[in-house]
Amino acid sequence: MTPTHAPLTRVDLEHLPDIARGSALLGTGGGGDPYIGRLLAARAIEEHGPVPVTALADVPDDALVVVVGGIGAPTVMVEKIPAVTEVTQAIDRLRPALPRPITHIACTEIGGVNSMLPIAAAARTGLPLVDADGMGRAFPELQMLTPSLMGVTACPLTVVDDKGNAMLLDAVDNLTAERLARAITVEMGCSATYTMYPMRGAQAREGLIPATLSAAHDLGRRMAAARAEHRDVVAEACAALAGLELFRGKVTAIERATVGGFARGRASMEGTGAHQGRRLDLEFQNEYVVARVEGRVAASVPDLVCVLDAETGTPVTTEGMRFGARVAVIGAPADPRWRTPEGLRLVGPASFGYDFPFRPVEELAPR
Amino acid sequence: MTPTHAPLTRVDLEHLPDIARGSALLGTGGGGDPYIGRLLAARAIEEHGPVPVTALADVPDDALVVVVGGIGAPTVMVEKIPAVTEVTQAIDRLRPALPRPITHIACTEIGGVNSMLPIAAAARTGLPLVDADGMGRAFPELQMLTPSLMGVTACPLTVVDDKGNAMLLDAVDNLTAERLARAITVEMGCSATYTMYPMRGAQAREGLIPATLSAAHDLGRRMAAARAEHRDVVAEACAALAGLELFRGKVTAIERATVGGFARGRASMEGTGAHQGRRLDLEFQNEYVVARVEGRVAASVPDLVCVLDAETGTPVTTEGMRFGARVAVIGAPADPRWRTPEGLRLVGPASFGYDFPFRPVEELAPR
Repeated sequence: MTPTHAPLTRVDLEHLPDIARGSALLGTGGGGDPYIGRLLAARAIEEHGPVPVTALADVPDDALVVVVGGIGAPTVMVEKIPAVTEVTQAIDRLRPALPRPITHIACTEIGGVNSMLPIAAAARTGLPLVDADGMGRAFPELQMLTPSLMGVTACPLTVVDDKGNAMLLDAVDNLTAERLARAITVEMGCSATYTMYPMRGAQAREGLIPATLSAAHDLGRRMAAARAEHRDVVAEACAALAGLELFRGKVTAIERATVGGFARGRASMEGTGAHQGRRLDLEFQNEYVVARVEGRVAASVPDLVCVLDAETGTPVTTEGMRFGARVAVIGAPADPRWRTPEGLRLVGPASFGYDFPFRPVEELAPR
Repeated sequence: MTPTHAPLTRVDLEHLPDIARGSALLGTGGGGDPYIGRLLAARAIEEHGPVPVTALADVPDDALVVVVGGIGAPTVMVEKIPAVTEVTQAIDRLRPALPRPITHIACTEIGGVNSMLPIAAAARTGLPLVDADGMGRAFPELQMLTPSLMGVTACPLTVVDDKGNAMLLDAVDNLTAERLARAITVEMGCSATYTMYPMRGAQAREGLIPATLSAAHDLGRRMAAARAEHRDVVAEACAALAGLELFRGKVTAIERATVGGFARGRASMEGTGAHQGRRLDLEFQNEYVVARVEGRVAASVPDLVCVLDAETGTPVTTEGMRFGARVAVIGAPADPRWRTPEGLRLVGPASFGYDFPFRPVEELAPR
């Protein structure tokens, strides 16, 4: 996804609505409520001023980059809102375990609250924010970051909660780190804040996906402009994401449960307009994982499955989806490194428990 | 419980069988298999020499004492044996979080593997072992230590597993520390090793229960002597513990489940000899928690409920109890500080989910 505007050099209050809107869509339904994240980021910028943004290519070799964000079930996070002190606590708790001072903060994922918490953390700590993230979208588990593909370890990592409980974890691999951090998160009430993946500058430059903060901002801006100009927001989002409109319809069923610290569930919709008489089924684990049209896979992880309100173009999160809502579903290609054999091992359909092989959304698209 | 022999000044190989036997009984069925603990301690002493023992009263003001041990379900621990490197790892992981070097090691509890792991840890680290523990028996949860009564915090604490995963935890209170450490332990496979309750010398002197390592050694020695001299081991154990023989009988039913990281269950026995025609029921959470004779409470936490093989006098752990075994059940008074209102709030029947008030075993004893 290439931004049509110049990349961000700082994040100020005026940028937040577009970044929140764009990252809510890129978050594929997950990453937590963007509205809550936006409030946290705005408050931090009001208090501490705008956040300087460093292009990924400009991160120096001697940098020490960490990613920060929220872990848990978005369904819980909307009620148990992370405090900004939690984010800085997670960073402060990690400092003694690192060989050098932290120099930069980056986003784990571009998605809802998790594109906003790093902005808040950067504002409060005075550290610059890297224009990059570890997913190019949102994924539910902490090993699902592109730096994992080049052997960067998530640990040492910290998980802290709103009560002041803090864990420093050293796990033998990133999948184990996910299991252990998730167990603590569940016990902390299914919502907590982390700092992880300490990376040297060269590791960050190679491991992270560049310019995704700018891309989210650009996407959000294009969507807002389309809406203001009474153009089709869904078509504009498709164009920006190089994606395909898979479906328009009305939500006819939704099942949701908080299981193992995740918001899991499924939703069904019946088609409207050109899709009249057809049915689409979505399954999610915090994020939308697979979309089936008439029982046939139309898009799946790692490709993006995005849902928007068909009238307003507002991204619909998995916890925000409601019976009767009229929505559009977009499928869009993931970052190319997720489509490699190594990438698919980490975030392909099989890693979410499905037995079908991955096929790119552009190949699956209905003729 | 007052030892009839001089207190230990060191622990050598020759002391291990008696300490293991005595602490298996004091462990009230919990604390893990004493045989496994004994092997770990023997190996460490063979490699590193005997362990110097410091009397609790001799711990200096500027000491920094920690307790070490195993956390999890004894049913799992008998198959997933803690490695001694795990214990030293748990200590080493805690060092950077402490303001000063660790000077002494103590037992969390006098019970099976948890009276032996500290010996192994002391041998391997070269630190002296304090002749004391935090329970005077064994209890299943990590907030159930006498130092808790004077406000000593369990954190910072470490939990490590056999794979090399390590957690450093700072929790807001000891009950939360228990919940979070337990969640990690379950995810680590229901058996892990910890270091916790960093205490200054004065805190240790006031907070720990003195001379319990010597008492366990003395108890074990008296039981062995009684057996060698064909005297009644059960009667000797009763005398040593100032306890009462509650029952002799045959195990007729046993239910066990590993639930929430604990070995929970119940056992029933029908009386033999003087107890013919009566029934005793035991309930346990790692340790024996309550004994009922004919449905009436005969002993309960915090008092000790101990089970021995009626023929050999060997202590019977909760995971070692078998259908058809002929056993004797002893009730014995807990350390007086457990019988105070504060002590009962922490380890009384209500803290184990029972709604009956605590009554001392000597008052409950059948006339």
